[in-house]
Amino acid sequence: MYDVLIIGLGAAGYTAAVYSARYKLSTFIVGAEEGGMGMTAAEVGNWPGDIDVRGPDLMERFKNHALSFGDLVTHKIAWVKSIEKIDGGFRLHLESGDTVDGKTIIFAMGSSKRHLGAPGEEEFSGKGVTYCATCDAFFYRNKTVAVIGGGDSAVEGAAIVAQVAKQVYLIHRRSDFRAEPYWVDRVQSRDNVTFVLERNVAEIVGNERVTGVKLDKPFEGQETLAVDGVFIEIGSLPSTELGKSLGCALDSKGFLQVDGAMATTVPGVFGAGDVTSGSNHFAQFATAAGEGAVAANSVFNYLQSGGKHEGGHMA
Amino acid sequence: MYDVLIIGLGAAGYTAAVYSARYKLSTFIVGAEEGGMGMTAAEVGNWPGDIDVRGPDLMERFKNHALSFGDLVTHKIAWVKSIEKIDGGFRLHLESGDTVDGKTIIFAMGSSKRHLGAPGEEEFSGKGVTYCATCDAFFYRNKTVAVIGGGDSAVEGAAIVAQVAKQVYLIHRRSDFRAEPYWVDRVQSRDNVTFVLERNVAEIVGNERVTGVKLDKPFEGQETLAVDGVFIEIGSLPSTELGKSLGCALDSKGFLQVDGAMATTVPGVFGAGDVTSGSNHFAQFATAAGEGAVAANSVFNYLQSGGKHEGGHMA
Repeated sequence: MYDVLIIGLGAAGYTAAVYSARYKLSTFIVGAEEGGMGMTAAEVGNWPGDIDVRGPDLMERFKNHALSFGDLVTHKIAWVKSIEKIDGGFRLHLESGDTVDGKTIIFAMGSSKRHLGAPGEEEFSGKGVTYCATCDAFFYRNKTVAVIGGGDSAVEGAAIVAQVAKQVYLIHRRSDFRAEPYWVDRVQSRDNVTFVLERNVAEIVGNERVTGVKLDKPFEGQETLAVDGVFIEIGSLPSTELGKSLGCALDSKGFLQVDGAMATTVPGVFGAGDVTSGSNHFAQFATAAGEGAVAANSVFNYLQSGGKHEGGHMA
Repeated sequence: MYDVLIIGLGAAGYTAAVYSARYKLSTFIVGAEEGGMGMTAAEVGNWPGDIDVRGPDLMERFKNHALSFGDLVTHKIAWVKSIEKIDGGFRLHLESGDTVDGKTIIFAMGSSKRHLGAPGEEEFSGKGVTYCATCDAFFYRNKTVAVIGGGDSAVEGAAIVAQVAKQVYLIHRRSDFRAEPYWVDRVQSRDNVTFVLERNVAEIVGNERVTGVKLDKPFEGQETLAVDGVFIEIGSLPSTELGKSLGCALDSKGFLQVDGAMATTVPGVFGAGDVTSGSNHFAQFATAAGEGAVAANSVFNYLQSGGKHEGGHMA
């Protein structure tokens, strides 16, 4: 029986594995694919200490770090079909039929960004279509871009991109916003932001890269807005199925609810990274890593205290 | 007037500067010395993605990253004597007499570890004397070490070190512990942990490196315990003076109280890193970086919303 089962092969999972190995906890880390959301980042500019690094290269470094502890860390690429509570811990059922037992769990399965489902979206993903304004705005200096969505993340995304871009179209299918009205007004009042309301994206068009967004109804006479980039900010889908099956509570946005120790509502079950409510829902390499460290520390404290101590690290 | 004033030149401050620069916020970052607590780490094994890096080298990378944004980031090494609230923001008074104004603040001044004040402590700092069990336990495989203290951090420290060391002495000046009794019992029951109670450390002795801890009263006939390392875990002193002067509330342990958005209790004032109550008080490079990212995102949201939005990033 492993000390800890980490599910998810992204920044949060690998960091948790580094910490658990350094605590000499026997660690099993598993996920359907390596590298998580980090794999999709062509250019990472905000992993501190690395001015420029490719996402897959950074994730390779995280993985190699986690695997540098010899027998302490077992790494497996596999789909976890289900989890059950067993005496003294938990049992993972892998798709192969194999089972793996552990005393504690760290859920680090991340989330996926909601897609529009518009023609051209997949084709131009990474070629002008992006799902993270904080990560990618900086690459659109003096360019014209569209931001899609009507919630806080879209309004925040438009504000972020407007800091660097020449011109921003905020395209929203309704006329009213879920985001805070005061903030919506502030963004709308910016000279370089144009609101394109009651319009759907019919298609994302381009050649090598994105060249425009085709609308379902013309806007100021134009059926296609010429843009260099499209930021799709319509929310995230955290991978919470396994957590829910164990009875872990979700927060109001549908993420795994964790406390400051990254403990879920189920004893012995912790979370880290984009799947959780941690770090103010700000999903970044740096926040995932920080949460992975805290979760592993909490697992250590939990095991040492025989399950009495839900992870409160004391300064 | 700068958009944001970041006080502290460690992992949290530099990461916040990377993020604020990427949001195109004009950023002033200042501190009495470069690199913060990171400078004291001879060997860093838990910065994810870098299996082994020297603390000063890692901090140099953080700094260079923050300074890679040209005019957006102004970096100054100076002592901040005081801060005052001014119309629309805050004014820093530097020791030179210069003042610097900004709309928002991120406190990232870190904390210092409490020292014993015992002879030999400073001399052998980094040569067997350490203040972070999580960071350094791994370097004491199959060695004999002393852990000093009686609170949770000492008991946790002893448990962490006992995972890797051959023999651990937990030296505490009293017979009772502030740490949770259940956990104290668990640690005491370990074969390789010996409790040395009602003893003070009279001196830390050694040659090139630590060789022993001299007690004020003999323990089992020995005046000096032969050890290879001494982990001093008697608490942290967060640098909260400037925060307190602005009216920021502290948590029960004396750290700057922050919410999930890393907002302090004073509007426009945020915190990141070891000085705050964030990340469950788990003070690591990874947690400091994660908090720096969140704090900068919250500053951005605060400024964009004209101060109405205290930083809640929406997933």
